Amino acid sequence: MNLPKSVSIIEVGPRDGLQNEANFITTEIKKEFIQHLVCAEIKEMEVTSFVSPKWIPQMQDAAELIQSCYSSIRSIVLVPNKKGAERLLATNCKSAAVFVGVSNRFNQKNINKSTRESIVEIRPIIADLKSKGFFVRACISTAFYCHYEGAIATADTLALCQEFADAGVDELSVADTIGMATPAESFSLFSTLKQQLPNIMIAAHFHDTRKMALANIYAALQAGIDRFDTSAGGLGGCPFVPGATGNVATEDVVYMLERMNIKTGVKLDKLVKAIDIIAPHLSRKIDSGYYQLTKKRDISV
Amino acid sequence: MNLPKSVSIIEVGPRDGLQNEANFITTEIKKEFIQHLVCAEIKEMEVTSFVSPKWIPQMQDAAELIQSCYSSIRSIVLVPNKKGAERLLATNCKSAAVFVGVSNRFNQKNINKSTRESIVEIRPIIADLKSKGFFVRACISTAFYCHYEGAIATADTLALCQEFADAGVDELSVADTIGMATPAESFSLFSTLKQQLPNIMIAAHFHDTRKMALANIYAALQAGIDRFDTSAGGLGGCPFVPGATGNVATEDVVYMLERMNIKTGVKLDKLVKAIDIIAPHLSRKIDSGYYQLTKKRDISV
Repeated sequence: MNLPKSVSIIEVGPRDGLQNEANFITTEIKKEFIQHLVCAEIKEMEVTSFVSPKWIPQMQDAAELIQSCYSSIRSIVLVPNKKGAERLLATNCKSAAVFVGVSNRFNQKNINKSTRESIVEIRPIIADLKSKGFFVRACISTAFYCHYEGAIATADTLALCQEFADAGVDELSVADTIGMATPAESFSLFSTLKQQLPNIMIAAHFHDTRKMALANIYAALQAGIDRFDTSAGGLGGCPFVPGATGNVATEDVVYMLERMNIKTGVKLDKLVKAIDIIAPHLSRKIDSGYYQLTKKRDISV
Repeated sequence: MNLPKSVSIIEVGPRDGLQNEANFITTEIKKEFIQHLVCAEIKEMEVTSFVSPKWIPQMQDAAELIQSCYSSIRSIVLVPNKKGAERLLATNCKSAAVFVGVSNRFNQKNINKSTRESIVEIRPIIADLKSKGFFVRACISTAFYCHYEGAIATADTLALCQEFADAGVDELSVADTIGMATPAESFSLFSTLKQQLPNIMIAAHFHDTRKMALANIYAALQAGIDRFDTSAGGLGGCPFVPGATGNVATEDVVYMLERMNIKTGVKLDKLVKAIDIIAPHLSRKIDSGYYQLTKKRDISV
């Protein structure tokens, strides 16, 4: 089986992972969490989001959080709209993420715009950021299934990915937002995307809602994908998708990959320390396999 | 990707799943659990074990439990030794499982015998059961890793499997007892086994300790495996392996397979009812993806 020799991990815990935590986590704790992730050799990270504090209060400290901008790594900031992009331009950060759902109803629930309205708004933002030297990733949500619309037509996902590639993004992060894709579907979509868009970076973003995340990653590896969004501790979910449990846990992905001699560069022992920082402030228990094993005595992980 | 069109599920919840529950679950509840599993169209099941009640008190009601013997399905009873086999011969059941660990130290901890001593004891039991028309499966534990010995040499696993095939068993159930195998290792071992033993049934038995169970099953499917041991609700673990959490959950496996158009015959709605029967009597929470989703409102599973 021809798998990649190395893989890039894009850590999304501080942004995607924390955004649904109801209780505000102080900026100091977030900074400590991020610094420990950097110590664990995370090289790309969604750090925060310039979203309206009315919508996601947890991200109200975005400007303060990225003052240092963690310049040793690719610090990615999510900008949902023009206002967010303007706030980002006032910082030293040079990497941005935009997002849109393939599912129109999901996009409406998520940001109160149709998918088409989102694209029209985002295209000039991408052009502006690219002209200023930014790295831009487009997060393509509900690429397989939607809680509201059910199965998403693959042709719609491919067309949207093509549209963002044409708009000049550096990377597509293609997400199984509700954790319903099967390994066969993961292999199929990512194989097609790699063929259709050979000159763009493609990351796969899986949720472990139905326990298929690592199977989907294994299938995506077989399709040639070598970039994965993961979340330390499996933090996250989606506020607009009931029951959408966490992103796949960074530590479980890194463990599986390293055990298959696929290099990630991530240091598992230090990653566990980063999770130790954030865990006491969360509303839920960390249930990743690797992290739980480290907390049991007499277990070799 | 060439995957099997259909797969046989061997339900191990009533035996492997319950054997570690410290509090005795009444025979009536076990019977109700099993009957609901039969209603869910489970066709092969490890029902109980003729093991010493001193060692595993939970299985003290084996004789009573199998009085009816669930003759509409393949009811498999574990017999660890000659005495267990004699007790089985006094019943109407016609399917037996024997077991041995590739790891010598595991086998010592598990049944106080070396692997070689186990083989010497089991071979005549197999011969006797086969001469009396029994279906016999051999459960090969620690086929990949052992908590005590670490990595197991593939050659040792293959040799042990060959030995049991030569002894005349109908099936090998090859287990990643501590849930540490990677999908690459699953594919590799099961591909080799299918080549080496083309005329014997081979089942794969995975634990989800490190969240790789479904990935390993996907890899085993690619290796041509079409029989999987699973446990309703993910019940189980191993009393002699600290931190070895549950067997992979039947409902998560069935969900993934059916979604990939691989027929299992198992009815998920009725399987959930079977888990509902046993769940209140367990010492732990059911944490399979599928079962949890059915308990959330407004979620389509």
